Amino acid sequence: MGSLSTNTLSPLDPNGFTNDSKMVIDFIADYYKNIENNPVQSQVKPGYLLSQLPDTAPYCQESLEDVLKDVTDSIIPGLTHWQSPNFFAYFQANASTAGFVGEMLCTGLNVVGFNWIASPAATELESIVMDWMGKMLKLPSTFLFSGNGGGVLHGSTCEAIVCTLVAARDETLRMIGAENITKLVVYASDQTHSTLLKGVKLVGIPSSNFRCLSTSFSSEFSLSPQALEDAIENDIKAGFVPLFLCATVGTTACGAVDPVMDLGKIARKYNLWFHIDAAYAGSACICPEFRHYLDGVELADSLSMNPHKWLLTNMDCCCLWVKQPRLLIESLSSDAEFLRNNASESSDVVDYKDWQIALSRRFRALKLWIVIRRHGLANLMCHIRSDVNLAKRFESLVAKDSRFEVVVRRRFSLVCFRLKHNDECQGLELNRKLLAAVNESGRAFMTHAVVGGLFIIRCAIGSTLTEERHVDDLWKLIQEKAADLVKETGSLTWQELGRAYPDEACVRLW
Amino acid sequence: MGSLSTNTLSPLDPNGFTNDSKMVIDFIADYYKNIENNPVQSQVKPGYLLSQLPDTAPYCQESLEDVLKDVTDSIIPGLTHWQSPNFFAYFQANASTAGFVGEMLCTGLNVVGFNWIASPAATELESIVMDWMGKMLKLPSTFLFSGNGGGVLHGSTCEAIVCTLVAARDETLRMIGAENITKLVVYASDQTHSTLLKGVKLVGIPSSNFRCLSTSFSSEFSLSPQALEDAIENDIKAGFVPLFLCATVGTTACGAVDPVMDLGKIARKYNLWFHIDAAYAGSACICPEFRHYLDGVELADSLSMNPHKWLLTNMDCCCLWVKQPRLLIESLSSDAEFLRNNASESSDVVDYKDWQIALSRRFRALKLWIVIRRHGLANLMCHIRSDVNLAKRFESLVAKDSRFEVVVRRRFSLVCFRLKHNDECQGLELNRKLLAAVNESGRAFMTHAVVGGLFIIRCAIGSTLTEERHVDDLWKLIQEKAADLVKETGSLTWQELGRAYPDEACVRLW
Repeated sequence: MGSLSTNTLSPLDPNGFTNDSKMVIDFIADYYKNIENNPVQSQVKPGYLLSQLPDTAPYCQESLEDVLKDVTDSIIPGLTHWQSPNFFAYFQANASTAGFVGEMLCTGLNVVGFNWIASPAATELESIVMDWMGKMLKLPSTFLFSGNGGGVLHGSTCEAIVCTLVAARDETLRMIGAENITKLVVYASDQTHSTLLKGVKLVGIPSSNFRCLSTSFSSEFSLSPQALEDAIENDIKAGFVPLFLCATVGTTACGAVDPVMDLGKIARKYNLWFHIDAAYAGSACICPEFRHYLDGVELADSLSMNPHKWLLTNMDCCCLWVKQPRLLIESLSSDAEFLRNNASESSDVVDYKDWQIALSRRFRALKLWIVIRRHGLANLMCHIRSDVNLAKRFESLVAKDSRFEVVVRRRFSLVCFRLKHNDECQGLELNRKLLAAVNESGRAFMTHAVVGGLFIIRCAIGSTLTEERHVDDLWKLIQEKAADLVKETGSLTWQELGRAYPDEACVRLW
Repeated sequence: MGSLSTNTLSPLDPNGFTNDSKMVIDFIADYYKNIENNPVQSQVKPGYLLSQLPDTAPYCQESLEDVLKDVTDSIIPGLTHWQSPNFFAYFQANASTAGFVGEMLCTGLNVVGFNWIASPAATELESIVMDWMGKMLKLPSTFLFSGNGGGVLHGSTCEAIVCTLVAARDETLRMIGAENITKLVVYASDQTHSTLLKGVKLVGIPSSNFRCLSTSFSSEFSLSPQALEDAIENDIKAGFVPLFLCATVGTTACGAVDPVMDLGKIARKYNLWFHIDAAYAGSACICPEFRHYLDGVELADSLSMNPHKWLLTNMDCCCLWVKQPRLLIESLSSDAEFLRNNASESSDVVDYKDWQIALSRRFRALKLWIVIRRHGLANLMCHIRSDVNLAKRFESLVAKDSRFEVVVRRRFSLVCFRLKHNDECQGLELNRKLLAAVNESGRAFMTHAVVGGLFIIRCAIGSTLTEERHVDDLWKLIQEKAADLVKETGSLTWQELGRAYPDEACVRLW
């Protein structure tokens, strides 16, 4: 029986807290030690857990031992192990000890810092850390509190985008009238994260007003300033109101980078809100050799990046900086009597509830603060460079094998490659099968994308535990599966290869 | 020097992880042991932290000991201690050991469960726990996955409201055209949480289309069905399109309860989306004696409640159930190539990214699952009842003192009271000063509200560590400060009393 059995109504007894928590620490440490023994991608079937757990809550308390046994027996087999060193899918979600203890402190103190007075340290540390992080990225001072801009921690890019969209929307609608919401237009490339279109729809702008501008191999999938300007001019002629431009530094599909400076000039010319989404690659920009990708950021209105991807900060942590906090606040403030207090009315303080969607918020800054302090800028740069070097290593392995090709130039730690094939549909099938074979082996997990009509395999390097040997093993695994596949499918026709996938799939991808 | 100094590039080394984490566990346990030594409300001045921390990030790593020393010296004095047993402000944010270890597991495993395939256990456990919780509340099966509805964990009520508003908005706009967004109308009482109006604005509905219906003492601040129906009829006549009704079970200001059944009938008659916000009092509805407040829930389209308030679940955790998940998904799905997978295309699985604002999400269900299992329904009911009994005790103490009055009937664990005064403006000042005196003492923290023109002090009982003695001490403190105040202000005129507060403050509150 766990400690609760004798402390029925002491759910936060310090001794019980210490015992249970340390048991869970040991459990998690064991999980890390043995993580490579698990198939990286979960191999369970839909609905697997329903048969393993009761369908109603227990009436009586259960012991922590029983809970942890169920985690081992029922939960872990259903996990795709994002912390495995053999996880190369999507983008990495870096965990670290520092990020973990930061989250523990946040959860343990459990304060709710919606406004300054509700816990001044939560607000003030966040403002300080956002200035630290902004300086690490060499942002113009106009994005820092010390320069009358400011930053806020959100949970996700989508939230950050929604807040900036709303601020931009309202500023424009105040001039042209609320009824013109259906005339507002948002611009981005076809490589932009789907979260932008979701945000556009959320804030009430018709999805038909989202201009998804084409990119191609010739520009390495970056947004063409000329295409943008043409689209804006067309929209103006047609009576639309250009509102918002999102550029991406490090796209999801292939790590492409939009030309921030040139796009920024157009944004300024037409008075668009210019947001830079550097969710993934923003972390790399703390290193001088990558910082040039942000050149032109001084022309932007807002910038977001996610330390929860590549900066050793456990989920969730998204940094958003804006030049004009006033515009966020005008759209997002709520003025309930129960929240009124002298500090807020003095305007001497930041009330972060007015910088985000929700009222409630955790003490988010602790985690990023501790990650930065425990590693220091020097080690964080090492961390980025180490991953980039692993990616270079993988890239050179691919390049040495004439059956494969690197499809898009690598800029950060994402390598996009494929088995070459002169028939595009067969090439798609071949690479799809290769990816499936790798993932089904349980020894590694990667995901795919389609760029310029090509199905590519994405090897996103950067899990915290990934070392050189894991990259080398991955490459051996890929070669092995490729050999099997070529042997197996050598004599098959396209119709046979296509069995498992309807023809439309091929067509739709193109 | 901390463990990192010898493990520069091993930020997730299991031994370092264990050592650092256990040090932080001990730190948090000590914090709980000594929590009563801190002033409950932080007494720092705006900007206090800037002078205590460097203004740039460190280049080199720092030790965990140094970080924790700064937490002790600089952060804790800037906290308002939500976990203090003397915290009676806003609504409680229950922490518990079970909630804490649940969050640790979530943060330690650090999987990102945006869709089923990205970690099947994260999705499946959430669906199972939402059905558990729904059954604990005796929700109709139409809200459960087992009855073709379903539930999802959000971070906050605002997010939940935004998602339901968007689903309702889009369903209606599909029929009447996107250009009619400015005709949509949302209804709620003037006691409804400000988050609703914020959500309305976020999704692009003009704030002038938010009908904030008056309540009064005579109906104990519940929304009048007649007033609602009149407003709807007026809007229809004026060419508006009634869209959404939000009822509250346990309002923020005074714990009022809207008549769910009667409002639900009107919502059905006029085909409004009917949402029930039970953020605070929903937790109480797991007890049979409180469940009747949800009678009529079968007429609703959606319901939300926050275990992070009163159900021992550390921040954040908001449960949202909907009858028609399809409508959420139609508004919130994103269809990026990199997320495509066979499981999603089979439609056999839930992809929670399509039930929320963000794409990314943590393994949220672990925390609520562990809270429920470690306590069991029986102890969770005890927890609620124990707080309600403490509130009854406090209420009877107030009632016995003829200088005071309980202003609104207590239903849950919130007691709204004030020092009586026959001049309303002077009464406001007197109670404002009483509240300030209590809070400035550091021995307790309460907040205020204004209902029906009266300034009331809210005593929200329910911090996890609060015991009978804390409630008794609070009452002694209040009596002591009241006595001082009456002595001090006995001979003052209103003009003198009003010095610190401009006249408009008084007027504005009425």
